[in-house]
Amino acid sequence: MSLIVVGTMAFDAIETPFGKSGQIVGGSATYLAWSASNFVHEVNQMSVIGYDFPKEELDALIARGVDMEGVQVKKDEKSFFWAGKYHLDMNTRDTLDTQLNVLANFDPVVPASYQDSEFLMLGNLMPKLQLSVIRQLKNRPKLIVLDTMNFWMDTAMADLEEVLKEVDVLMVNDSEARQLSGQFSLVKAAKEIRKMGPKFLVIKKGEHGALLFHDEKVFFAPALPLEDVFDPTGAGDTFAGGFIGHIAATKDISFENMKNAVIKGSALASFCVEKFGATRMREISHADINDRVQQFVDLVNFDINLTN
Amino acid sequence: MSLIVVGTMAFDAIETPFGKSGQIVGGSATYLAWSASNFVHEVNQMSVIGYDFPKEELDALIARGVDMEGVQVKKDEKSFFWAGKYHLDMNTRDTLDTQLNVLANFDPVVPASYQDSEFLMLGNLMPKLQLSVIRQLKNRPKLIVLDTMNFWMDTAMADLEEVLKEVDVLMVNDSEARQLSGQFSLVKAAKEIRKMGPKFLVIKKGEHGALLFHDEKVFFAPALPLEDVFDPTGAGDTFAGGFIGHIAATKDISFENMKNAVIKGSALASFCVEKFGATRMREISHADINDRVQQFVDLVNFDINLTN
Repeated sequence: MSLIVVGTMAFDAIETPFGKSGQIVGGSATYLAWSASNFVHEVNQMSVIGYDFPKEELDALIARGVDMEGVQVKKDEKSFFWAGKYHLDMNTRDTLDTQLNVLANFDPVVPASYQDSEFLMLGNLMPKLQLSVIRQLKNRPKLIVLDTMNFWMDTAMADLEEVLKEVDVLMVNDSEARQLSGQFSLVKAAKEIRKMGPKFLVIKKGEHGALLFHDEKVFFAPALPLEDVFDPTGAGDTFAGGFIGHIAATKDISFENMKNAVIKGSALASFCVEKFGATRMREISHADINDRVQQFVDLVNFDINLTN
Repeated sequence: MSLIVVGTMAFDAIETPFGKSGQIVGGSATYLAWSASNFVHEVNQMSVIGYDFPKEELDALIARGVDMEGVQVKKDEKSFFWAGKYHLDMNTRDTLDTQLNVLANFDPVVPASYQDSEFLMLGNLMPKLQLSVIRQLKNRPKLIVLDTMNFWMDTAMADLEEVLKEVDVLMVNDSEARQLSGQFSLVKAAKEIRKMGPKFLVIKKGEHGALLFHDEKVFFAPALPLEDVFDPTGAGDTFAGGFIGHIAATKDISFENMKNAVIKGSALASFCVEKFGATRMREISHADINDRVQQFVDLVNFDINLTN
C-alpha cells in the first residue's frame, strides 16, 4: 500500500486572533505525511528543503514510516517560508510574506525505489511540478489525487489544465471550484470540472464540511462544530492526507469507500485546527481518531420513517 | 395534533439574478401554513391581512385544513408589503421597500377555538406580538418554537429577550446566532443562547445546512446541493413549517425526533427555493417529499469501519 506524497516542506509564521506561532514547520507535504501516516506506513515523500530545515522534524516523520529519499536537500539555500495572518472569521487570510528560496528552482525527481507506488497524492504545488511527477512514473498509480489553490488558477492556469487531464480526484475549496469552473452553483461547477479530467471532485468548505462528487452522485460530510478554530493552517492538506491515507490503506477506490476517506480526512482536519501548525498531529492516537470519527457518525445520524 | 401558526401574510416583490416576481403572495405565516399542512391537518392560522389579499390564496390554504378564524381582515387597509433584491450569492439581499400597512397596529387575538392547541409556531414577527400570543394561551403548548431575525435584535432586543424566556426552540440563521450571543463560534453561541431560555436551538445556514443544538448534543442536517437556487424567499419559514409540522404530526418532542423534523424542514425548504414565492409548495406531493427526504438520507449516508 505504498503512497507517494508530493508537496512543500517549509516554515510558516502564522498570526491568528489567538496569537502568533513564531516560525514553525509547515508545508503541504508535511501535513500530508503526518496525516496519511496514521493509516499507511509506507509514505514516499517528495519535497525540497534547505539547510535550515530541522533534522528532528524529518526524524519524527521517518519514525512514522515516511521515506525521505525523495526529499531534496539544498545545502546552500533556505527552506520555503510563508507568513500569513487570519481574519476573525478564520476563513480568510492575508499573506504577509512569501520567500520561495529552495522552491524557486525545485525539480522533483522520482527515486527508482518510488516507482510502482500504488497511490499518488499531489499536494498543493506548482502545477508543472505536479505534472512532472506524473510523467516520471513508469506505471500509472491506481489513483492520482491533486490538491491545488486559486493562486495557480491566477498564475499558471494552462499548466493546471494540463495536469488536471491526468488526475482522478481534484480537491479544491468552494471559491476555487467556482473560479475554476466559472459556475456559482457547486453542482454545475462539479459538472464543468469533470469535463477537465477528474472523475471525482472533493470540494472543501471549511467549517461547512466537504462535498464529494462523482457522476451524478454526491456525498456530503459535515465539519465538526468546534468551540474554537485555533489555526486553520494545513487543515486542507491534513484533510487530503487523511483521504489518501485511508484509500491507500484500504486499496479501495470505489465511491462508497471515498465517502469514508472524506470522513477520515475531515476527522484529521478537525484535530489539525485545534493548535498551531502540526502540533496536534503529533499528539493524537488511533483511539483519538476513532473517537472523532464516531462523533461524525453521531453528528449526521438520523433514523427517519418515510411513511408518516 | 392541533398547531397554532403565527406570522405575516403579505405581498412580496422579489428580484433575483433570474428575474422579477412581480407582486406575489408571501409572508412568514403563509409559508409556514403551506409547509406544515403537508404533515398536520389542523393548522390554526393567526395573522392580519388587508382588503387586497386574494381570497383564492386563503381558499387554497383552507382546502389544506388551515383554519382562518385567527386571521384578522382590515377592510380599509392594505396588506403588508415587502420588496427585496437578492445578490448573486442568493444569500444576501437588499430591502427595496417595506410598507407595514395592516401590520402597523396588529394586535393578535387568540380565538377561543384555538385554546388547547398542542403546538405553537411563532413565525417571524414583532417579538412583543409573539409574546402576546403566548400570554393569551390558558394552557402552555407542548412545544413553543420561535423564529426571528436580526431586524428585531437591532430594534426590539428587550422584547425579544422577554419572549425568548418563554420558548422551547429558537430558530435563527448563523449570523443572527452570532449577533444574539456575541460569540463567533456557533458552539459557544448555542451555549449563550441556551441561557436566554430556549432549550433547543436550530441554526439555519442556508446552502450550508442546519444545526440542532440541545444540552451537549448537536445534530447536523445538510442542505441538498442544488443546480440553482431560484428564489430563497420563504425558505426559512418553509423550513420552520416542515419542522413544526413533523413535530405536531408525531407529537414527539424528543431530540431524536427533532432531528427528523430538521430533515423534513430541510426537504421542504429545498423545494421552496426552486421557484418564485410559494409556487413549488402548491405543486409537491407526499411522494415528492419522501423522495427528497430519501435524497437527504443518501447524501450523508456512509458506512465506516472503525477498526482499520
